[in-house]
Amino acid sequence: MNTTIDQDDVADRDVAAAVVGPPSSVTVGIIGAGQLARMTQQAAVGLAVDIRVLGLARDAPAVRAGADYVLGDPNDLASLRLLADGCDVVTLDHELVPPEHLRALEADGVALAPRPAAALAGADKLHARRLMAARGLPLPAFDVVSTVADAERFAAQHGWPLVAKAATGGYDGRGVWTVPDAAAMARLLAELPVDIVIEPRLTLERELAVLVARSVTGESMVYPVVETVQRDGMCREVLAPAPIEAKLAGHAQSLALQIATAVGATGVLAVEFFLTPEGLVVNELALRPHNSGHYTIEGTTCSQFEQHLRAILGWPLGQSTLLAPAVATVNVIGPLDGSDPASRLRLALGIPGAHIHLYGKSPRAGRKLGHVTVCGRSLSGARETARLAVALLENG
Amino acid sequence: MNTTIDQDDVADRDVAAAVVGPPSSVTVGIIGAGQLARMTQQAAVGLAVDIRVLGLARDAPAVRAGADYVLGDPNDLASLRLLADGCDVVTLDHELVPPEHLRALEADGVALAPRPAAALAGADKLHARRLMAARGLPLPAFDVVSTVADAERFAAQHGWPLVAKAATGGYDGRGVWTVPDAAAMARLLAELPVDIVIEPRLTLERELAVLVARSVTGESMVYPVVETVQRDGMCREVLAPAPIEAKLAGHAQSLALQIATAVGATGVLAVEFFLTPEGLVVNELALRPHNSGHYTIEGTTCSQFEQHLRAILGWPLGQSTLLAPAVATVNVIGPLDGSDPASRLRLALGIPGAHIHLYGKSPRAGRKLGHVTVCGRSLSGARETARLAVALLENG
Repeated sequence: MNTTIDQDDVADRDVAAAVVGPPSSVTVGIIGAGQLARMTQQAAVGLAVDIRVLGLARDAPAVRAGADYVLGDPNDLASLRLLADGCDVVTLDHELVPPEHLRALEADGVALAPRPAAALAGADKLHARRLMAARGLPLPAFDVVSTVADAERFAAQHGWPLVAKAATGGYDGRGVWTVPDAAAMARLLAELPVDIVIEPRLTLERELAVLVARSVTGESMVYPVVETVQRDGMCREVLAPAPIEAKLAGHAQSLALQIATAVGATGVLAVEFFLTPEGLVVNELALRPHNSGHYTIEGTTCSQFEQHLRAILGWPLGQSTLLAPAVATVNVIGPLDGSDPASRLRLALGIPGAHIHLYGKSPRAGRKLGHVTVCGRSLSGARETARLAVALLENG
Repeated sequence: MNTTIDQDDVADRDVAAAVVGPPSSVTVGIIGAGQLARMTQQAAVGLAVDIRVLGLARDAPAVRAGADYVLGDPNDLASLRLLADGCDVVTLDHELVPPEHLRALEADGVALAPRPAAALAGADKLHARRLMAARGLPLPAFDVVSTVADAERFAAQHGWPLVAKAATGGYDGRGVWTVPDAAAMARLLAELPVDIVIEPRLTLERELAVLVARSVTGESMVYPVVETVQRDGMCREVLAPAPIEAKLAGHAQSLALQIATAVGATGVLAVEFFLTPEGLVVNELALRPHNSGHYTIEGTTCSQFEQHLRAILGWPLGQSTLLAPAVATVNVIGPLDGSDPASRLRLALGIPGAHIHLYGKSPRAGRKLGHVTVCGRSLSGARETARLAVALLENG
C-alpha cells in the first residue's frame, strides 16, 4: 500500500529544472477586450488555449481576467497586425473594426474566424438584410434611405412612425431611433454620416434569440431558443428555454442554421428574432458570442465561449443540451448614482443559486457591468432569484 | 420602440476617457501557482477578484491562466512578503511553506487563511494526528518512530508490514512507504531527515473524501461524500456521490465538519478517509482546494474554488448541492513516452459530455496534467465516458 494525501496540487519544486519549453499551445487572438473576450479567456484556460486580445487599456475586462494583450485601436491596421502575429486564428468580440482592415489581415495570411466576408453580415445591417432577403429568409420590410422622399414613400405603405437604424456602428440601443414623422427623418438624415435602414414599427409578441455554432470544418450545433427581454434597447433578461411551442422553436432553430450557412459564419452566431402576429422575422445578427448566450455557462453542457473556441479552431463541437428545466439570466446595469455593483457583491452572494459574473468594468450609469444566472425548475422562479441578486447588486 | 442588436459586448470606445480608477477590487494572494491556483484564478474572474500567485516560473499553471504573479520561492520570506503586500488575504495551494514564515507574515499583519496554526494541520501529519487524537476523532493506530526498536514495538502489536509516512514534505505517493521489516525500517530511518509516522497496513473497503468550506465568519458548508480511487499513491478517479449508505455518508460529513472546527480551518478543507471493516478512519487532511473536489466545477452549484474564495473573504458560502445524479472525475496523467496530452485534445473533445481541464504544465511521465469530469445518470456511465476521454488524451 502506498497512500498519502493527494497533493496533486503541490507546486512542482523542480519546475524550473524540468522545463523543456512550453507545452503544446494554441493562441487565439481576439479583436476587442470586453466582457466577451473576458469570458472566452475563462473558457480557454481549461483547454490550455492562450488568448491574446486587442484592447485600448490595461484595465479592459479581458486583460483584467488575465488574457495576454496588445494595446491598440481596432481602427489601426498596425495594431491589428501586432495582435495577429503568431496567433493560430483571430476572432472578434465586437463589430467596430473597419472591414478593409479585416481583408488586409486575410491578405496577409491571417486565419480569421469569421472570415471578413462573413463578419460583414454582423457589422453592416444593410448588407445582412440584403443577403438574407436574397435567400428568402423572413425579414421585416426594409429600405435604405438617402432622402426624406424615400422615407415618405416607405411610410405611405407602412405608416409612421418608422424605425431607423444606422447600418453600421450601433450597439445597445445606440444607432436606433423611432422616427415619428418626415421632419424628424430629415434631421436624422442631416446628422448621420452612414447609411440608414428603415423598417416599420412592428407589433411584437416576444423577442427570441438562437445561438448557432458553426465550425470551420462545417459542423454545426444549435442551442435552445431563448426569450430576450429588452429595456431601453438593451437586453435585460434572457429566459431559456423560451416559453413557446416546440414547433415554433424548431422553426427558429432551423432559420438560425440556414442563416449561419447563408452568411458563412464560423464560430458562434447569434440570431435575434421578433415574434409578430404574422410570425417570426429576423431582427439582427451577431457573428460572435452574445449576451443572449451567457446562460450557457451554467445552463448547457458546453458554454458559448468554449463552443466559439472549438468552432474557430476546427475542434469537435460540444453539446448544447440544457442542464436544467429553466435557466434565467439577468444583466447587471450600472445604477444612476454611478456606484459600483461590485461593492455590493457580498449581499448578492447571499442569494442561494445565483451565479454572479462581474465584468471588472468601471461603473457608469446604464453600462452593462455583469450578469447573474440561475438554474431552476421554473422560468418564473429562476428569474425571480436572478432579479433579486441583481437588485442587490444594483441598489444594495 | 428602440431595439437593436445587443452589442453589450462592444469594446467601450470611450474606455480610456471614462476610466476614473479601477472598479472596486479585492486581491487574493496564493502561495503557489499550480493547478489549484489556476482553477482559483478561473473562478475569481466572475467575482472580479484579482489573484496574485507566488510561483517559481512564468509558465506556472496559474500564471499561464492569467494570474498576476511574484516570481519567487515559498522558502524565501522576502518573496512571501512581496506576494502579501497589498493583498486582502493570502492563502495556500500547497503545504511546502515553512511554518515559521507563515507566522512571520501573520506577525506582519497579513491576513492568512488558513491561519498558520491551522495550516500546520495540513503540513505536518504528526501534528494533525495528535490534534485529532486528542479530540477523539477516529484515526488509524499511529506512532512516531526514532529508532528501529520503536517500529518493532509497534509491529509486535499490529504486525508487519507497516506504513511509514514522512510527517512533512510528501505528496502524490512521495513520502509514503510500505515497510516490510525491521531492516527496511532501519534504512528508512537512516535516510529520512524528518519525523516518521508509522501506521498499520489497513484493510480498505473504500477510500472516501469530504470537502468542507469554513468561512472566516464561522459559517460552514459540507459537500457530498465522494469515493476516491488511487493508483501508485495518486488519486486517479473521483466518484460523486460515493456509492455508500446515507448513514455512513452523514457520519463522514459530520466528522469532516468536526475536523474543520478542531483544526480551525478557514477556506476549503479536504478530509480523506479510509473505510475499513471496523469503520471510518481519517487518513489525511488538506487545508485548501483538493483534487477530490474538482468534480464540483461542473457537478455542484458552487465549485470548491469559488467556495474557497468566498470562505477566505468572509463572503456568504455557496451551495454544495450536486447537480446530477452522478459525477465522475478522472485525472489525466503524463504518459510514459513523455508526450503531451494537450497534443491530443482534439480527439478527446469528440467525447460528448466530457469536460476537459488541462493544467498547462510541461508533460512528464506520471505527472498530473489535467482532469476530465462527466455528469451523468449513473456513476458507471459517467466514469466510462470520462475514462474514454482520458484514454484519448493519454494514449491517443
